Amino acid sequence: MEKTMSEPLRLGIAGLGTVGVGVLRIIRKQAEMLTARTGRKITVTAVSARTRGKDRGVPIDGYAWEDDPVTLATRDDVDVFVELMGGADGPAKAATEAALKAGKDVVTANKAMLAVNGQALAELAESEGRQIRYEAAVAGGIPVIKTLLEGLAGNEFTRVMGVMNGTCNYILTRMQSAGLPYETVFEEANQLGYLEADPELDVGGIDAGHKLAILASIAFGTRVAFDAMELEGIGRITTEDIRQAADMGYRIKLLGVSRMTGRGLEQRMSPCLVPAASPLGQLEGGTNMVVVEGDAVGQIVLRGAGAGEGPTASAVMGDICDIARGTRLPVFGQPAASLVDATPASSATPAAFYLRMELQDKPGALAKVATVLGNHGISINRMRQYDHEAQTAPVLIVTHRCVRADLDKAIAAMAATGVVEGDPVALRIEEV
Amino acid sequence: MEKTMSEPLRLGIAGLGTVGVGVLRIIRKQAEMLTARTGRKITVTAVSARTRGKDRGVPIDGYAWEDDPVTLATRDDVDVFVELMGGADGPAKAATEAALKAGKDVVTANKAMLAVNGQALAELAESEGRQIRYEAAVAGGIPVIKTLLEGLAGNEFTRVMGVMNGTCNYILTRMQSAGLPYETVFEEANQLGYLEADPELDVGGIDAGHKLAILASIAFGTRVAFDAMELEGIGRITTEDIRQAADMGYRIKLLGVSRMTGRGLEQRMSPCLVPAASPLGQLEGGTNMVVVEGDAVGQIVLRGAGAGEGPTASAVMGDICDIARGTRLPVFGQPAASLVDATPASSATPAAFYLRMELQDKPGALAKVATVLGNHGISINRMRQYDHEAQTAPVLIVTHRCVRADLDKAIAAMAATGVVEGDPVALRIEEV
Repeated sequence: MEKTMSEPLRLGIAGLGTVGVGVLRIIRKQAEMLTARTGRKITVTAVSARTRGKDRGVPIDGYAWEDDPVTLATRDDVDVFVELMGGADGPAKAATEAALKAGKDVVTANKAMLAVNGQALAELAESEGRQIRYEAAVAGGIPVIKTLLEGLAGNEFTRVMGVMNGTCNYILTRMQSAGLPYETVFEEANQLGYLEADPELDVGGIDAGHKLAILASIAFGTRVAFDAMELEGIGRITTEDIRQAADMGYRIKLLGVSRMTGRGLEQRMSPCLVPAASPLGQLEGGTNMVVVEGDAVGQIVLRGAGAGEGPTASAVMGDICDIARGTRLPVFGQPAASLVDATPASSATPAAFYLRMELQDKPGALAKVATVLGNHGISINRMRQYDHEAQTAPVLIVTHRCVRADLDKAIAAMAATGVVEGDPVALRIEEV
Repeated sequence: MEKTMSEPLRLGIAGLGTVGVGVLRIIRKQAEMLTARTGRKITVTAVSARTRGKDRGVPIDGYAWEDDPVTLATRDDVDVFVELMGGADGPAKAATEAALKAGKDVVTANKAMLAVNGQALAELAESEGRQIRYEAAVAGGIPVIKTLLEGLAGNEFTRVMGVMNGTCNYILTRMQSAGLPYETVFEEANQLGYLEADPELDVGGIDAGHKLAILASIAFGTRVAFDAMELEGIGRITTEDIRQAADMGYRIKLLGVSRMTGRGLEQRMSPCLVPAASPLGQLEGGTNMVVVEGDAVGQIVLRGAGAGEGPTASAVMGDICDIARGTRLPVFGQPAASLVDATPASSATPAAFYLRMELQDKPGALAKVATVLGNHGISINRMRQYDHEAQTAPVLIVTHRCVRADLDKAIAAMAATGVVEGDPVALRIEEV
């Protein structure tokens, strides 16, 4: 039975890391404000975490303790299960499912769980008449889920883009400002605690890819399809790439782009060149940015902290306040059963590309590469060979607009010429 | 009686200018998408406008016609009254009141009506158990009302700022890029149709001030108090001011700032210097930007088109979709009866100021001005006298942080020295 609006909204929180503690802090400090805004008292009934005794800076003695998040999620005195443990499967998923089946709404910050299991969870939630809210799963404090689901609900979306991994943006901007190589800045970021336990989640684009997959599902009414995403990390970017990009008026960003095309759904998370003067190009350090384009609204840019206790807890609280006020929405903006399976079309949209490769220093090498590109229908906008001391010569090429599939074929064919050392780096120049 | 969710949501639209036509276009073009997203058919029952016969680019024969918006607003076959006529009072207010009393929700784009009559209308709406939604009233397509009311509801807001009049930003950035004086660019803007019939609404800061008053009410839980706003237009800004600001690393923007201080509510809409490298400083042309700062989320920046058919209609549609989905919110985010009357404290927060004045070209003039400032406790950070051909010498002063009231006293006292020609220009340097 639905609670009436004047009764308290009772939370069970699983996971008392940075975000969980942030949520507790807000609920304790702003109780009066939250009640004024939602018309209800928001209380915490029970909590759960890996270790109980730890000093977290907020007292948790006043809340019931559960060792098992599934038990927490199904308590009779919990209305909303707040999942802040993380992980695509395992306890997070088990407890979320248990909560939904027990008639609770769920608020989560878990991008991996939604990117991998979002469709099944949404179907479960909707069959139970329950909600899953996940503003904190994408771009931290930026209310981008709400913007797509609600504020811009009158738009047919044309493109959604974002810089949504602060660590990668920190590494790339630091490489640029300090002129330091990737390896050095990666190590700095590691020392500063900016990297996940498995750094590939950050620098390989996986974390940001999870976020983009969620946004694409909402924007295009498609089943979340993280598996179909074209993923490329930032590990091969050199300071030379950054310098060359800057000379041409660009910045290199780990940019997610999702777009519905005539051929299917494009989803890419990869290092791209974007104009230095654009909002995306100007984004420095750990800040996140999401760019949403709709047929009516044009371009909306949202910028803010993508991680951290306060911003992420702010997003969780936004969802909790919505539930307290009685707002009800399908998980991905329309009934999960009506979401369609999109044909993956990773790079259907043509673009100019930046290519860097090492050529053997012998006559005709450059001509061979140019010929291969021409044979694949790719024309060259600019080409430059640098001074070099090594046996190989670095060469930079900017193509005219072409399709990535053709470029990949050309790059494969270059290997057969015997003049290219190693794998060329190819970066899309995204028009923003 | 509430309609069940599966029944159509029936709109009555008053005002068929740019925005009204934009709303009709979206409803006609995206009927299927809107139903998928809201679970209901969204239909238009009746429309009203000044003239009936006009070709608007969309057929209106299929809708009932009403000459009188009050009649439209109270029709039995209308669930939501969409007010797109404009004007603080008159027919817009009369029809809004009639709609609320007849049990209809209201969606409006009318910033003047809300800034001037918002409290009374919100009280009426809430006593009738109805909503007024007004995303389109502030910053066009940017979903800033939703962001403040919902997405960031877990935050105690510390400051809300915005560049919310595209025409003023166009004028200021054009003055900078083309080096043209205010009067020339004003005339250009007029020719381009960028100015309201009464241009003072734009360049005097009134239109943007209305928007800021609405944002302040939501952010700080206060009764909307446009009358208490410190308002200053852009008419006295010269290309020299813009050049000097640029030399120091700043841009001049018509910036709205609202902040709750120990002394009361600060609300200012005035030309300010902001760092050229900040998102606000980088905002060019007619685009709008709103910067929201909260205790948990830190700083969120929202950027997008502030006017035009598509963006404004997008905002109206967001509100309509919310109502179709059954979302219910107090008009200003908490019950209108609980909003407090804030003490106005227009410029309680200290800041550095940019001062420009004309001094008579005689010995000791500069010293006299400096002495007056010192006597009022205002210390000088930098001071510069320019080359000049006229009888008076332009002098630029940048102060250290001081309170505006002290500065105003100093400026008044300068007049008594007899060395200052005309009124000095004083522009706040806002730390963003």
